[in-house]
Amino acid sequence: MTGPLASSGTVFFLSDYGNHDEFAGVVRAVIRRLAPAAVVIDLTHEIPPFDVAAGARALLRAVPHLGEGVVLAVVDPGVGSSRRGVALSVVEEPSRFFVGPDNGLLLPAAQAAGGEIVAVELANPHAGAGSATFDGRDLFAPAAAALCRGAGFAELGQQIDPDTLVRPLLPASRHSMLPDGRRVQWCRVTWVDHFGNLQLSTPPATGDPDVFALVFPEDETSAAMDAVGRMLRRARVFSDLRVGELGVIVDANGSLALVIREGSAAELLGIREGHVVGLAEPPA
Amino acid sequence: MTGPLASSGTVFFLSDYGNHDEFAGVVRAVIRRLAPAAVVIDLTHEIPPFDVAAGARALLRAVPHLGEGVVLAVVDPGVGSSRRGVALSVVEEPSRFFVGPDNGLLLPAAQAAGGEIVAVELANPHAGAGSATFDGRDLFAPAAAALCRGAGFAELGQQIDPDTLVRPLLPASRHSMLPDGRRVQWCRVTWVDHFGNLQLSTPPATGDPDVFALVFPEDETSAAMDAVGRMLRRARVFSDLRVGELGVIVDANGSLALVIREGSAAELLGIREGHVVGLAEPPA
Amino acid sequence: MTGPLASSGTVFFLSDYGNHDEFAGVVRAVIRRLAPAAVVIDLTHEIPPFDVAAGARALLRAVPHLGEGVVLAVVDPGVGSSRRGVALSVVEEPSRFFVGPDNGLLLPAAQAAGGEIVAVELANPHAGAGSATFDGRDLFAPAAAALCRGAGFAELGQQIDPDTLVRPLLPASRHSMLPDGRRVQWCRVTWVDHFGNLQLSTPPATGDPDVFALVFPEDETSAAMDAVGRMLRRARVFSDLRVGELGVIVDANGSLALVIREGSAAELLGIREGHVVGLAEPPA
Repeated sequence: MTGPLASSGTVFFLSDYGNHDEFAGVVRAVIRRLAPAAVVIDLTHEIPPFDVAAGARALLRAVPHLGEGVVLAVVDPGVGSSRRGVALSVVEEPSRFFVGPDNGLLLPAAQAAGGEIVAVELANPHAGAGSATFDGRDLFAPAAAALCRGAGFAELGQQIDPDTLVRPLLPASRHSMLPDGRRVQWCRVTWVDHFGNLQLSTPPATGDPDVFALVFPEDETSAAMDAVGRMLRRARVFSDLRVGELGVIVDANGSLALVIREGSAAELLGIREGHVVGLAEPPA
Repeated sequence: MTGPLASSGTVFFLSDYGNHDEFAGVVRAVIRRLAPAAVVIDLTHEIPPFDVAAGARALLRAVPHLGEGVVLAVVDPGVGSSRRGVALSVVEEPSRFFVGPDNGLLLPAAQAAGGEIVAVELANPHAGAGSATFDGRDLFAPAAAALCRGAGFAELGQQIDPDTLVRPLLPASRHSMLPDGRRVQWCRVTWVDHFGNLQLSTPPATGDPDVFALVFPEDETSAAMDAVGRMLRRARVFSDLRVGELGVIVDANGSLALVIREGSAAELLGIREGHVVGLAEPPA
Repeated sequence: MTGPLASSGTVFFLSDYGNHDEFAGVVRAVIRRLAPAAVVIDLTHEIPPFDVAAGARALLRAVPHLGEGVVLAVVDPGVGSSRRGVALSVVEEPSRFFVGPDNGLLLPAAQAAGGEIVAVELANPHAGAGSATFDGRDLFAPAAAALCRGAGFAELGQQIDPDTLVRPLLPASRHSMLPDGRRVQWCRVTWVDHFGNLQLSTPPATGDPDVFALVFPEDETSAAMDAVGRMLRRARVFSDLRVGELGVIVDANGSLALVIREGSAAELLGIREGHVVGLAEPPA
């Protein structure tokens, strides 16, 4: 199977630890102690607590831009349970590894990085007594550090069948018709970023109209109702819109996104992550 | 006394500077300029402003996981006053140093790192005129950088008697009896972490019951009153609890902590750092 | 003109990307991939979204403390528009560079770093089709990495006339007389820091009185009105004030600042960034 990491090592670190406590700092310190030549690149530590799917999507967005190294990702509501700690190796990219809990967090990014995966279950240091609530520090960071020091992938633990890895449910979009016959594309808001841009669970399509009308499912009462029917102009970049104008762009990850130039679409429309929105053809 | 730092140097950096301004960044830049080969590991910069005790506790939690290097810690309400700037060296661990204000921030962690301490007072660069409000940048970072460059500890300043160092008051717990004869352990909430877990000022005891009843001192009116009498199940890990269930675990630092599985105990119970809570035997 | 960066490279990174998403992390990863030996020093990523002037002021405060290297700054409301991406080189400091959008963000700091500037326009990678919303990742980070790898400045793009660079409007202060004949110095609040200190758009003057009276322009209704007429004691350091006392100090950047010892002046006075305040001679 896969060999050791050639260089002195990079750890790409993502978690839901937040920046307020010393959690992420202690993990960085453990890596510094166990693999002094490795460099830690923080991706983010503000994944919403316990939100495995949000972490998986952030990794998926980041992974095309990462070079060789170990992705260390910890969003881990099942810490201390029987959920497995795992390391994944990308067969076609033998210097790329993913370390973290087996709960769907790692797999989409690992597959996007290169297709076929091999996997090991990390030997559990808590088999005996003692605290088992901080596997980022006690289990995953040591495994990432071992890879940076040149350990072979197979030394990390027992090989397991990749088909047994937990797969996350990533939302898809679907099409239907409104009562008046207009075609509508229903998608989920998969990410509200720092600027209030709303990333949608749908890629752009060649037949997309120049203007969409914003609609909501009948049971979606949480969005601001005066948002219904708003026109969304299809734009290439923010500056194609007027300041404050709503639009739909292809964002930096290749997804459709509902945006406002120099403003927060999330705030204006009262829309949050997980909401369903519809992009309809404009009324005739 | 103690000698120079052997390696190229690590600075473990903790402060109350926050992540919003460039304060911590400027300190990192000063270290990069004065000790180009040193690596800065940020522990956290979100210690509550001026809260020396919270900073001391965060260092105390982190210190068992840090390797060789310089802990640079700045929570410094007395900046510019006659409070001393100090560096501490751990006699039994000659490659571990602590740099910061002499206000109780450093001492518990330094003692936990190895017992006997030697101390120097840093020569004050503000003896003359000029601004003296940013000692992290102007006094402490240069001292940490000097240690990373291999300066001898004694070169940093005048040796001082460690017994004159300011000692912090770290909260303890105590026991008493409720009117109905049940035994109760009163403890202070010493840390509310990012997830809303409540770390308590008490270590686990072997005689602890399987379930505690949550009680409050009579003068503690700030907690949500419907929290009184809640049952807290003793669990080894979060996953021993049902999602949303309250419990008491031994956390990753070896302290008792009041937690909810996949939720915020702080939010549910209306409890904040500094509050006193009682863990009572359950009613008969 | 200017030559390559001698050392292995430092990137000082400032943006309005926030710490919640992976934006800044992905930029760090791109630099790690393109210039593996470079070190990234984060200044801050919490510049208020789209606030170019706030970013310019933060860079201006930081720049006296930065050593050799590349300042990579991204606050970029015009991303994707015809605004230019630029790199600036400081003639008198041939190892200091500034990379980012040409919108006024970089120029004050670059000029403060050494006076005369030479500039190039970065070749735009989005000249064709495709997403053009994340120039930090796709345009500016590669340019910064190229400088760290030793590329000559002139290789980055076409030289442009520095006089055509966009200049920001940085607020100044002015003097006038109150109706009762007292002299008042009107200044803008240019920065509310993490501690609630209010940095003012005015340097200290030798004729400043020992006590100021706080006044507001007639049309400034947003500040707490009970703040009017508050006395502000001129102090050298925070500890010259009593805990909770208002004062005016020369802060760590050499500006006047309105502060409270161990408290938030912004919160107490209801003053925010951009507000205008007057420092008047005290009533007779």
